[in-house]
Amino acid sequence: MLARGLPAGPGGATGHIVFTAKDAVEWKKQGKKNILVREETNPEDVEGMRAAEGILTARGGMTSHAALVARGWGKCCIVGCSGIHISHEDKEMRIGNKIFKEGDLITLNGTKGNVYEGKLVMMDSTEENMILNEFLGICDSLRKLGVRTNAETPDDAKKARLFGAEGIGLFRTEHMFYGKGSEEPLFRLRKMIISKTEEERRKALDELFPYVKRDIKATLEAMDGLPVVIRLLDPPLHEFVPHEKEKKEELAKALSISVEEIAKRAAGLHESNPMMGHRGVRLGITYPEVTEMQVRAIFEAAAELLNDGRKPYPEIMIPVVCEVKELRNQFEIVEGVYKEVLAKYNIKEIKHMVGTMIEIPRAAFVADQLAEVSEFFSFGTNDLSQMTFGFSRDDIGSFLPDYLNKGILADDPFQTIDQAAVGELMKIAIERGRKTRKNLEVGICGEQGGDPRSVEFCHKVGMNYVSCSPFRVPIARLAAAQAVIKEKK
Amino acid sequence: MLARGLPAGPGGATGHIVFTAKDAVEWKKQGKKNILVREETNPEDVEGMRAAEGILTARGGMTSHAALVARGWGKCCIVGCSGIHISHEDKEMRIGNKIFKEGDLITLNGTKGNVYEGKLVMMDSTEENMILNEFLGICDSLRKLGVRTNAETPDDAKKARLFGAEGIGLFRTEHMFYGKGSEEPLFRLRKMIISKTEEERRKALDELFPYVKRDIKATLEAMDGLPVVIRLLDPPLHEFVPHEKEKKEELAKALSISVEEIAKRAAGLHESNPMMGHRGVRLGITYPEVTEMQVRAIFEAAAELLNDGRKPYPEIMIPVVCEVKELRNQFEIVEGVYKEVLAKYNIKEIKHMVGTMIEIPRAAFVADQLAEVSEFFSFGTNDLSQMTFGFSRDDIGSFLPDYLNKGILADDPFQTIDQAAVGELMKIAIERGRKTRKNLEVGICGEQGGDPRSVEFCHKVGMNYVSCSPFRVPIARLAAAQAVIKEKK
Repeated sequence: MLARGLPAGPGGATGHIVFTAKDAVEWKKQGKKNILVREETNPEDVEGMRAAEGILTARGGMTSHAALVARGWGKCCIVGCSGIHISHEDKEMRIGNKIFKEGDLITLNGTKGNVYEGKLVMMDSTEENMILNEFLGICDSLRKLGVRTNAETPDDAKKARLFGAEGIGLFRTEHMFYGKGSEEPLFRLRKMIISKTEEERRKALDELFPYVKRDIKATLEAMDGLPVVIRLLDPPLHEFVPHEKEKKEELAKALSISVEEIAKRAAGLHESNPMMGHRGVRLGITYPEVTEMQVRAIFEAAAELLNDGRKPYPEIMIPVVCEVKELRNQFEIVEGVYKEVLAKYNIKEIKHMVGTMIEIPRAAFVADQLAEVSEFFSFGTNDLSQMTFGFSRDDIGSFLPDYLNKGILADDPFQTIDQAAVGELMKIAIERGRKTRKNLEVGICGEQGGDPRSVEFCHKVGMNYVSCSPFRVPIARLAAAQAVIKEKK
Repeated sequence: MLARGLPAGPGGATGHIVFTAKDAVEWKKQGKKNILVREETNPEDVEGMRAAEGILTARGGMTSHAALVARGWGKCCIVGCSGIHISHEDKEMRIGNKIFKEGDLITLNGTKGNVYEGKLVMMDSTEENMILNEFLGICDSLRKLGVRTNAETPDDAKKARLFGAEGIGLFRTEHMFYGKGSEEPLFRLRKMIISKTEEERRKALDELFPYVKRDIKATLEAMDGLPVVIRLLDPPLHEFVPHEKEKKEELAKALSISVEEIAKRAAGLHESNPMMGHRGVRLGITYPEVTEMQVRAIFEAAAELLNDGRKPYPEIMIPVVCEVKELRNQFEIVEGVYKEVLAKYNIKEIKHMVGTMIEIPRAAFVADQLAEVSEFFSFGTNDLSQMTFGFSRDDIGSFLPDYLNKGILADDPFQTIDQAAVGELMKIAIERGRKTRKNLEVGICGEQGGDPRSVEFCHKVGMNYVSCSPFRVPIARLAAAQAVIKEKK
């Protein structure tokens, strides 16, 4: 073994080392299997990640960009492998005293987090699906927890339905701005972000609207009859600002401003700690028109499906909430748009819910107030763990391995729910929330929703469902059944 | 009025606009009063901030760098003034349609956060000190809360004693690396940060040791007989990495490595969300030698003062703790060094305490365990509010004004303790902590420690003391007395 990192995406992969997303795409085109090696990945790497057999990053934790994307695809991935030292200019990587160049062969064991030199033999993981399905059917008859999936594309949604998902627990609107086919909507999102006035912003939003509606409609359709929790725009806007020269020039041209002005406006969006910055509902408060556009897209998509005889069931979820007044502010917008869409399509009702994510510690404490307006809660345990521990998910690579090795923490809190504090906050939120609203729907959409021990915890505290990436749905179904059996003992 | 920002440092100031710290120093030398206008400030601006009559920043909240430094000095300061648009290259600032150039006169009202054009008339704030002191004496006879100060220099410590401080509630070790006289220790700190091996790091720490010891000794001496809470190194290391070319070259030379290698190592320290990154106790866990050096400096300083017939009383505080095993790990180091220092100086005992900061939400939940080893708690309510709300203190300028204007939040949680969640966490921590250790000393060292409403809350929940910047000590004494009277009613 050469090095060990965090096992972010299970399975094995072997291939030639490449150091850029572009090279990964290029090598794949030439029919050569490759492993994409990066310091860390970002949305601009998505196509290369897709083209690679496996992904290896020097930095990042179990919920870093690379880990989330790879896991969503069921792709082999190792992150936070601090033993590798990459020189992107020289296209080489150093592990200990060994130097690896572009094209050298390595093998990843994404289940254990191990990196090996050369090409190791792989085993096919095809399973006896009939037996598995029969077994999972027994699990389903036992479990009380619902199992949903985190998915953003009709393909993922369909895949997850095959795996037994009973709905989508997390549809991230922003995912249409990443990867394949994202160029057109991303360009319009960038126009919106760089806008200075409400007028400019509304114009860009109008252009963006059809893409958002199309995207949501496709997934609502794929999940017909099942609930789809659609989270409004969550990440800080500066994440989408272009870095490449041509992209900046293109944007400047479209907005009739100079490239320098683009740079200036982009710099104005810079944040010291973006994870705790201007994002989620905070964007919706400062730019109500952003919420309005998204909500309109959801309701119009649902209305059109309804008129086609389908049964769409969107659950609109407001992220990053810490105070009920944020919700009241946003719900007013939702209510207004809802009425407009009913009138426009001449329909009486669109089945839907409006709710909030519980991912900021304060939200748990004020859950009794939140439930006055919120029809459902969904625990965003990635962010909730992040704030409760003060652990930045993207930066834990530098100290979490030490914490686990020295036994200071027994588990990575981003893999398994920390019951001492994060779990307590969840209990507080459920208890207070249901005190106000007895039939409050409660779910989880953080990564831990696919972790067996966390699923057991979710069962114990009385949640309605867990949601996880499509490939983890069968595991969640099993874990939910086991939780019931354990309880009976 | 031209614009309004956050009232970060009370008082008035008028002067000529300058746009760089260097210019502020230069203009001051020429006897010209100036107002330093910056996007935001960082430690490299400290000398310029000192030279300016007042400080105005476009970004940042009530606990941003500019706000904290200015308030500590009693200097007029307005932050998060988003109405101003600065072009540092052109040395000009735009407010609405007006352009202001270097040298133009403006006036700040730091109590209200207002910015005015031109030079307004100032009023002297000298007070009838005798009457005030007599009045505060009455307050002292009533109050139950102790009042300490946040101070890092002997001058501040002496000033705070004059204002009635009964000890130091927060001495930040890192402050010796900022501002005047910091060049020599900072250079050695940088060597330590850039070190790759424990050997390199220990060598740099040995060089740094005498500076840390001298600094701590001077403040322990100024506070003779009174407790001094010394917080071990708190901020993420990359904050201290040099940005200027000469500094990098100097550092490269001293370490016998290339400037490129410096850049590479510095880049390796980069974090996406440094506030939740590798800092505080996390540094002490990965680099135990860093804790060891600091603790040795504290105990040797105290030992030398003891042998001089003084009465030093250090309280060693571990920051950013979220788990008792972190404390156990660090306390073992403290215990080891303590014994070594006793032997070296041939003394039997140094009066001291070892404790922790409660600033990470998880710490409150596990406070019963923390109190098994911790002799005191000090609430770091800046960070605690930050994590509980998910509000980055440095980035709230972009949305908090909107939140306050639209009535979504009634108060800035960085000025006044949020009782709904931050306050609940504090209650949980005190209750659980004192369940384990009945006589647990509990204080607060966040900025809210000088806010009258927060002082009342601290009284109610049974804290032992509040700690605030020297200039706010009289206010805290008054507020603590008022809290007692209110309670009696």
